[in-house]
Amino acid sequence: MLDNMSLSRHISGQFNAELESIRTHVLAMGGLVEQQLTDALKAMHKQDVDLARRVIKDDHKVNAMEVAIDEACTRIIAKRQPTASDLRLVIAIIKTITDLERIGDVAESIAKVALENFTNKQYNLLVSLEALGQHAARMLHEVLDAFARMDVKAAIRVYQEDDRIDREYEAIIRQLMTYMMEDPRSIPNVLQVMWSARSIERVGDRCQNICEYIIYFVKGKDIRHTSPQEMEIFMDNNR
Amino acid sequence: MLDNMSLSRHISGQFNAELESIRTHVLAMGGLVEQQLTDALKAMHKQDVDLARRVIKDDHKVNAMEVAIDEACTRIIAKRQPTASDLRLVIAIIKTITDLERIGDVAESIAKVALENFTNKQYNLLVSLEALGQHAARMLHEVLDAFARMDVKAAIRVYQEDDRIDREYEAIIRQLMTYMMEDPRSIPNVLQVMWSARSIERVGDRCQNICEYIIYFVKGKDIRHTSPQEMEIFMDNNR
Repeated sequence: MLDNMSLSRHISGQFNAELESIRTHVLAMGGLVEQQLTDALKAMHKQDVDLARRVIKDDHKVNAMEVAIDEACTRIIAKRQPTASDLRLVIAIIKTITDLERIGDVAESIAKVALENFTNKQYNLLVSLEALGQHAARMLHEVLDAFARMDVKAAIRVYQEDDRIDREYEAIIRQLMTYMMEDPRSIPNVLQVMWSARSIERVGDRCQNICEYIIYFVKGKDIRHTSPQEMEIFMDNNR
Repeated sequence: MLDNMSLSRHISGQFNAELESIRTHVLAMGGLVEQQLTDALKAMHKQDVDLARRVIKDDHKVNAMEVAIDEACTRIIAKRQPTASDLRLVIAIIKTITDLERIGDVAESIAKVALENFTNKQYNLLVSLEALGQHAARMLHEVLDAFARMDVKAAIRVYQEDDRIDREYEAIIRQLMTYMMEDPRSIPNVLQVMWSARSIERVGDRCQNICEYIIYFVKGKDIRHTSPQEMEIFMDNNR
């Protein structure tokens, strides 16, 4: 595979060791963000106050990793002056960590909702987010996996998964809207659940961004903003 | 001023001409995004279908500019191997255009809301977004101005402006919630207005990001995720 070939070129040398170290840090950051997201969802569903507080407390670790990786990327560009695929890797990493950090923020905001007081009836609404949340967490897991292997085919599969998340999200919004109309006093709480649903849906969009960076690194092609037709052709050629 | 000194170093030479050209393109992209945002808001308030359609149609221009500037940045890094403040400028630009593109998406989504059918009564709700929208558009204008001059003091002023946008946003949400509770049939439409309010509020956050990149370029300091206390000290020292 093209990607493995270009990764294996980095096995020796100080520069390659540095690049590998950055890549490892990105994967560690991804692992932490995934943990934060699954813990936040668990805290919400189990109304686990301690877990929710820990997620909120740990968000600064995600932020610190973003800043440290960003610095390492700037340093490696200045010192090693990478070109071609090495440079694309660094640029892809700079962009990937921005999206990872925002997914970390989503975890924090879900944890905050977990700390709110819900009546039993409203608590059932939170449960309706369980499947959506797990779906988004799975998508994040898969995109990190694709990133670790710089696997374009896997990135394309993850990319397409977002459609289903969007449909699940829309179904939830319709359900919540009905609930609001039937019981207007529930509106403030239901709105909180809606904001959470929306931020979970956004995790899917951010995973799609990371797919685009993987493709950009491996193929040297920026597929953002391409038309659905062009995208279809690109995907057919890379399946 | 530090920033002017470091800008003036770029007056001569092919490299500097290239950097200047990228900077000019970023400002053109910023100008287009600002136009898109103010047109979208105008279309919403005046229920101007033609203007809304034009905003939606022109979003691809913003996207194309993002891709072109991104390419130019990667090219200049590979070819010219900038270091120190030159490199920071390129990195700041790569990040700035991501936020500008997302503000472009906000303009598009507001234009889509402008195409929806609202009853007269619900139309009044859209009007409640007018002040918030103008405030966000002004903040965007000011941050682009600060970017053009790489003016840290101006960036700090714009950064602090976001608090007020947040407060205006919260007041609107409370008002819309009351409206929903009084007239549950209005919920679907009011929710649309709420989503718009939220995306306008996010424009403020994105402008704050751009302020951070300006400070990063001029001061070589990454102020993201610093504690409110540290931020206060930094701002006091740079007023």
